Amino acid sequence: MTELSDFLETVNRNVDETLDEIVPRAEISPRHLHEAIRWSLFAGGKRIRPAIVFAVGQTFGAAFADLSTTAAAIEMIHTYSLIHDDLPSMDDDDLRRGKATCHKQFGEATAILAGDVLQTLAYKAIADDENLSTEIRIKLISIITAAAGTPNGMVAGQQLDLDAEGRTLRIGEIEQIHRGKTGAIISASALAGSIIGGASEEESASIGKYASKLGLLFQITDDLLDVTQATETLGKTAGKDVSLEKATYPGHFGIEQTRVMANNIRDEACHELSSIKKDTALVHMLADLIVSRTR
Amino acid sequence: MTELSDFLETVNRNVDETLDEIVPRAEISPRHLHEAIRWSLFAGGKRIRPAIVFAVGQTFGAAFADLSTTAAAIEMIHTYSLIHDDLPSMDDDDLRRGKATCHKQFGEATAILAGDVLQTLAYKAIADDENLSTEIRIKLISIITAAAGTPNGMVAGQQLDLDAEGRTLRIGEIEQIHRGKTGAIISASALAGSIIGGASEEESASIGKYASKLGLLFQITDDLLDVTQATETLGKTAGKDVSLEKATYPGHFGIEQTRVMANNIRDEACHELSSIKKDTALVHMLADLIVSRTR
Repeated sequence: MTELSDFLETVNRNVDETLDEIVPRAEISPRHLHEAIRWSLFAGGKRIRPAIVFAVGQTFGAAFADLSTTAAAIEMIHTYSLIHDDLPSMDDDDLRRGKATCHKQFGEATAILAGDVLQTLAYKAIADDENLSTEIRIKLISIITAAAGTPNGMVAGQQLDLDAEGRTLRIGEIEQIHRGKTGAIISASALAGSIIGGASEEESASIGKYASKLGLLFQITDDLLDVTQATETLGKTAGKDVSLEKATYPGHFGIEQTRVMANNIRDEACHELSSIKKDTALVHMLADLIVSRTR
Repeated sequence: MTELSDFLETVNRNVDETLDEIVPRAEISPRHLHEAIRWSLFAGGKRIRPAIVFAVGQTFGAAFADLSTTAAAIEMIHTYSLIHDDLPSMDDDDLRRGKATCHKQFGEATAILAGDVLQTLAYKAIADDENLSTEIRIKLISIITAAAGTPNGMVAGQQLDLDAEGRTLRIGEIEQIHRGKTGAIISASALAGSIIGGASEEESASIGKYASKLGLLFQITDDLLDVTQATETLGKTAGKDVSLEKATYPGHFGIEQTRVMANNIRDEACHELSSIKKDTALVHMLADLIVSRTR
């Protein structure tokens, strides 16, 4: 997987550089806010959503530079959601990506504001991205806000997850939570790449189906890691789902059957790519990466 | 002021209708989230920011329908900031617009999510507003995100305000906080109206200066009301600034001198309009309204 490692390294470097340009420097007032934003943005995130934007975008021939801002913006939205998700009134987590969570380090009020403003800066970055036509920028903001919002997006999924704590869920309910919390932004990342790459409607539809499976796959492997990995490998508190009585796949199906499901969903995701007449090797490899990840 | 009352009534009705269309119905899942959003959006807000969008937009000949979505979106951003500002880790307020604050009514986690998603829905509404060209939509999102964000926007002002609690501030610091917390979105409301109305660069520059004074005026009168009005008139907890040792104009200059300042700033704001060769009566009246408001 050298090709994939090279790709991921390039993505990581580019995302870091782009985020560093978009976000005010830590020396600029209000420093506490900008330090908090940077603390969470540069905490060793896996940059999986940007990797999806780049992989899909490049599959359809988009230039790397035309994908950078959107990839970084989606990472900012993801990071805002993590900061707020970790707050005491939400999941109350002390550790994220192996470091203190934002509110542990900077206090709760600043963590709330850091999350708030990361969302703002993400949409501003796309609106100001002069590499792209205004039509494309508007399309991107429209699909990303739908994926980040409600009733079918990330915040809706967070709310359903909160509502479900301590209650035994049907598998359909678990899937609905995952589609919102994780799947929507994963799908939007893939769609954003296809829009910037100028994919046809049919191609975007196939990418949408692939991405939707990829999102599910991501959540299932996340659940698996939570029960099978130690806190130090994971970089966040392991076993958290069980202690919060969260709805999870391993909790519902057991670990072994969940592993079988993950492999099947990977195959289904890749099958959706078969109708696309481009070199989809990179996009295939992303699915492999997610199914085999260890953190 | 019959003309002004009619105008404000029309604005209020239109904002309520537009918000009702933009925001998912309370019956749609996740209900708790949508109820919380609607609780705060329809809590009898004064709709001053939408009134500014409409007044300035109409001054430059924009159709009412072309201003509706942007006006509602700015009100959503304002409401998100109030919900988060009231949280226990921020101002810890129980009462807002005469009703329980969002977190008091729906719990802290849902209040955080309600604020988050109001911001998302606001940008989505503008991105999807087919009354406007994609160029104008992108311009609007760019100026509104700048005003809502950091380093010169609303969240930056909130952070500076937090940083300043319990410390005596120089007047320049107080002004910087106000420019961020309140002034930036007030200015953006006026600029948004001028952009949709197709104002020239010179006209937009004059409107920008007017709006910047208007924002300052709004904050000064807000501070005055906090010390002079009872909680029941205000609909939010009075005397809060003093108990939190917030930086305010009356705290710095005393009540009488602050009243004189407010009148002077009103005059300065209106003076900025003199170069605009349109009927600016409505925009003048807005400044009068703010200087004489009682809640």
